[in-house]
Amino acid sequence: MKNEAITSRDVDFAKWYTDVVKAAKLCDYSNVKGCMVIEPNGYAIWERMQNVLDGMFKETGHQNVYMPLLIPEGLLKKEGELIEGFAPEVAWVTHGGSKELEERLCVRPTSETLFSDYYSNAVNSYRDLPMKYNQWCSVMRWEKTTRPFLRSREFLWQEGHTVHATQEEAEAETRLMLNIYKKFFEDYLAIPVITGRKTEKEKFAGAEYSLTIEALMYNGVALQSGTSHYFGQKFAKAYDISFTNKDNKLEYAYQTSWGVTTRMIGALIMVHSDDFGLVLPPKIAPKQVVIVPIGNVSDKVSEVYQALKDSHISVYVDDSNKSPGFKFKEAEVNGIPVRIEIGERDLKRDVYTVVRRDTQEKMEVSADTDIASYVLELMDNIQNNLFTKARKRRDEMTYEAQTVDEMREIIENHPGFIIADWCGDQACEEALKEVGGLKSRCILEGENATHKCVVCGRDAKHKVVWGIQY
Amino acid sequence: MKNEAITSRDVDFAKWYTDVVKAAKLCDYSNVKGCMVIEPNGYAIWERMQNVLDGMFKETGHQNVYMPLLIPEGLLKKEGELIEGFAPEVAWVTHGGSKELEERLCVRPTSETLFSDYYSNAVNSYRDLPMKYNQWCSVMRWEKTTRPFLRSREFLWQEGHTVHATQEEAEAETRLMLNIYKKFFEDYLAIPVITGRKTEKEKFAGAEYSLTIEALMYNGVALQSGTSHYFGQKFAKAYDISFTNKDNKLEYAYQTSWGVTTRMIGALIMVHSDDFGLVLPPKIAPKQVVIVPIGNVSDKVSEVYQALKDSHISVYVDDSNKSPGFKFKEAEVNGIPVRIEIGERDLKRDVYTVVRRDTQEKMEVSADTDIASYVLELMDNIQNNLFTKARKRRDEMTYEAQTVDEMREIIENHPGFIIADWCGDQACEEALKEVGGLKSRCILEGENATHKCVVCGRDAKHKVVWGIQY
Repeated sequence: MKNEAITSRDVDFAKWYTDVVKAAKLCDYSNVKGCMVIEPNGYAIWERMQNVLDGMFKETGHQNVYMPLLIPEGLLKKEGELIEGFAPEVAWVTHGGSKELEERLCVRPTSETLFSDYYSNAVNSYRDLPMKYNQWCSVMRWEKTTRPFLRSREFLWQEGHTVHATQEEAEAETRLMLNIYKKFFEDYLAIPVITGRKTEKEKFAGAEYSLTIEALMYNGVALQSGTSHYFGQKFAKAYDISFTNKDNKLEYAYQTSWGVTTRMIGALIMVHSDDFGLVLPPKIAPKQVVIVPIGNVSDKVSEVYQALKDSHISVYVDDSNKSPGFKFKEAEVNGIPVRIEIGERDLKRDVYTVVRRDTQEKMEVSADTDIASYVLELMDNIQNNLFTKARKRRDEMTYEAQTVDEMREIIENHPGFIIADWCGDQACEEALKEVGGLKSRCILEGENATHKCVVCGRDAKHKVVWGIQY
Repeated sequence: MKNEAITSRDVDFAKWYTDVVKAAKLCDYSNVKGCMVIEPNGYAIWERMQNVLDGMFKETGHQNVYMPLLIPEGLLKKEGELIEGFAPEVAWVTHGGSKELEERLCVRPTSETLFSDYYSNAVNSYRDLPMKYNQWCSVMRWEKTTRPFLRSREFLWQEGHTVHATQEEAEAETRLMLNIYKKFFEDYLAIPVITGRKTEKEKFAGAEYSLTIEALMYNGVALQSGTSHYFGQKFAKAYDISFTNKDNKLEYAYQTSWGVTTRMIGALIMVHSDDFGLVLPPKIAPKQVVIVPIGNVSDKVSEVYQALKDSHISVYVDDSNKSPGFKFKEAEVNGIPVRIEIGERDLKRDVYTVVRRDTQEKMEVSADTDIASYVLELMDNIQNNLFTKARKRRDEMTYEAQTVDEMREIIENHPGFIIADWCGDQACEEALKEVGGLKSRCILEGENATHKCVVCGRDAKHKVVWGIQY
């Protein structure tokens, strides 16, 4: 059933995207310009993401904390690069009640400054280290153009901030978190990602270097999906985070930060979803199975429901007053991975129907099927199919180029990731913006350049992935 | 072992409170005036509270959402009473980046306005109702004097906002949530509460009426601990939330809101904790058991650890390099309900030691004890003991009075809850502020006045609980 509320993905991708967001009731525009209301269906996906990631963070020794929402201007300005990067896009609180404040406060765009300020008091000896903290919160960046989940003035995220006694340990942490993000994207969201290092131009303001995971959307546009930054001692020096090391000498500490956001919900839509609505990988779907009863079938419905429940499958029965056809469509648009239709007539033949959302395939199963095992296997299958399909498409849309003309030809006809060598000169990087807005996504680590710089023809230093970004 | 970092509770209660907060590393002052950093030990308690409450909310059909942080001034002002109540204490955002905003935005002090604005679009027919939404977030109120967890400019909370087709249903929701809060306080936090209705003076700005749970702290001061408000159609009329009812007529909807905050952590301290530090009821403690090994006892430690883990008890082994004495003290100050000391020498006698935090009692147990059952029973015992002790103290500190002189005598000598009859006149209510700052805590519902008004001597309408508030 084509969903009339949803524009075809191949006709108008941008319109299709917002139609899916709306039809699946993920979020709504609000009366606050550039801010969105995350509705129950959208928030449930975020909660599921939080739950899985938070478990991964805790398993690797991280603890959650909460830092203030507001940052005094003076504190924000201590680290010069950071303020340069964020000042144009923060919201300023100037009044408390009816009184003007002596110092204005910004709504946090990110919390390096607050964590550093805290660590400067809390860290004294190498015995206090490492401190590996994370917080789940909202942040605000005064963006001009906004799109649901992809770019909004306020968004939800987690920001990890850690402080270590040695460079080695901090660098290992930076990489550990990158790998956790990669694992989460591939194993749970079924989205393949490329990992690498950001160029100097694209790295986080104030970082020594930034690592990133980059995903490719259905329309060939790249999405920066998670970043992990190594700060070295930059913030430690600006905020005076020093400690007595094992040799009883005073030393500045080493820091990292890393984050992922509600943007991941946008990625799920743009990688997996289709003209019928949302498609969710079973491992991240808040509701994995819906049972639709047709006629007088309550015994069988209870039996199937209980069997799935007992196997810890997230299942619900749609016993509302709507027609079966309406329920099917609703389950489809909401991206429920598996739909079970139990009909009175079918049961007389000792069968009922299982439908998988990813391929829309309908399977008739015998009424005495071990349904829990069947669904568990089917969900594995769906999860793998979504990942394989996304990886195949990503691979097909990943090109290599040795000249700017080749790059232009690719971008104009079938955009995607373009791998091309680069001399390391920022002028060459910026020149590529003329090619349909191409930007460097990341430097591939551990791979040597094999050609000349795609722009200037001089010797190349790096193999770089380029793309058009959201 | 007396903790030198903690002032005695009976010597200086206020100092004792902040000493416990600091020694147990629950939160820290920040460089943002009036805002706190919630540290891992404090945040873990909040997470545990969230977890239990969120389960209770979902079981009763509520869904989580996220509303914007900022509220345009015009939207805030639609409901007159609300803005009057909150305007003096909101933080105003006036600039986005370097540009002054056309309309200033306030950092949410509460979100009735945003939910109402959302509902005005989302609600069309009685078929859309009820909508029972909740959000976990931070809110900001520009308080002048602040105290960790009890009163701060920013705090964490949940705010439930529901909309219903009938008055009966909305009123039932208001009461349901009050009872959930009561259950959570008594069954999990082991804090007995009095429930009742706020007076007109003390009710939430914009509510038809407010229900409250009120707890009594160790020093006889009352803490408003959770509130549940019935709005009737007030916001629905101001924000135009109307729907087509079953009779196909347009009708304004009925609303509620309800919330509890990180203040609950303050209540845990002021009800249960002591001169040795934090005391946590086992059902809310993030870590329920610590095992302290003394000497070469790793086999027994693993065995005990595994047995507790298998019974879903939250347990950890303190195998740091610190001395056993230091570890005992740390477990004590952090309020770990049960400490298990496993010593090499004791094991030779086939025994080890279990210590309960609430009474500090030490018990020698046989090495072949079924330790999981033992600890589960002990934790039940601790949970009950904390509740019983708190209730006994609360009852002993709850007085009745028939004259203002009697009230003054109580407040000056042994403050607590005072039950006294009241005529319903706001002038009488305000007159009692002269008596050591007495305020009405709540009107006891379903109880008739049995005496004259304690202030004016006229006929009384209500039995009211009075107290000095935080």
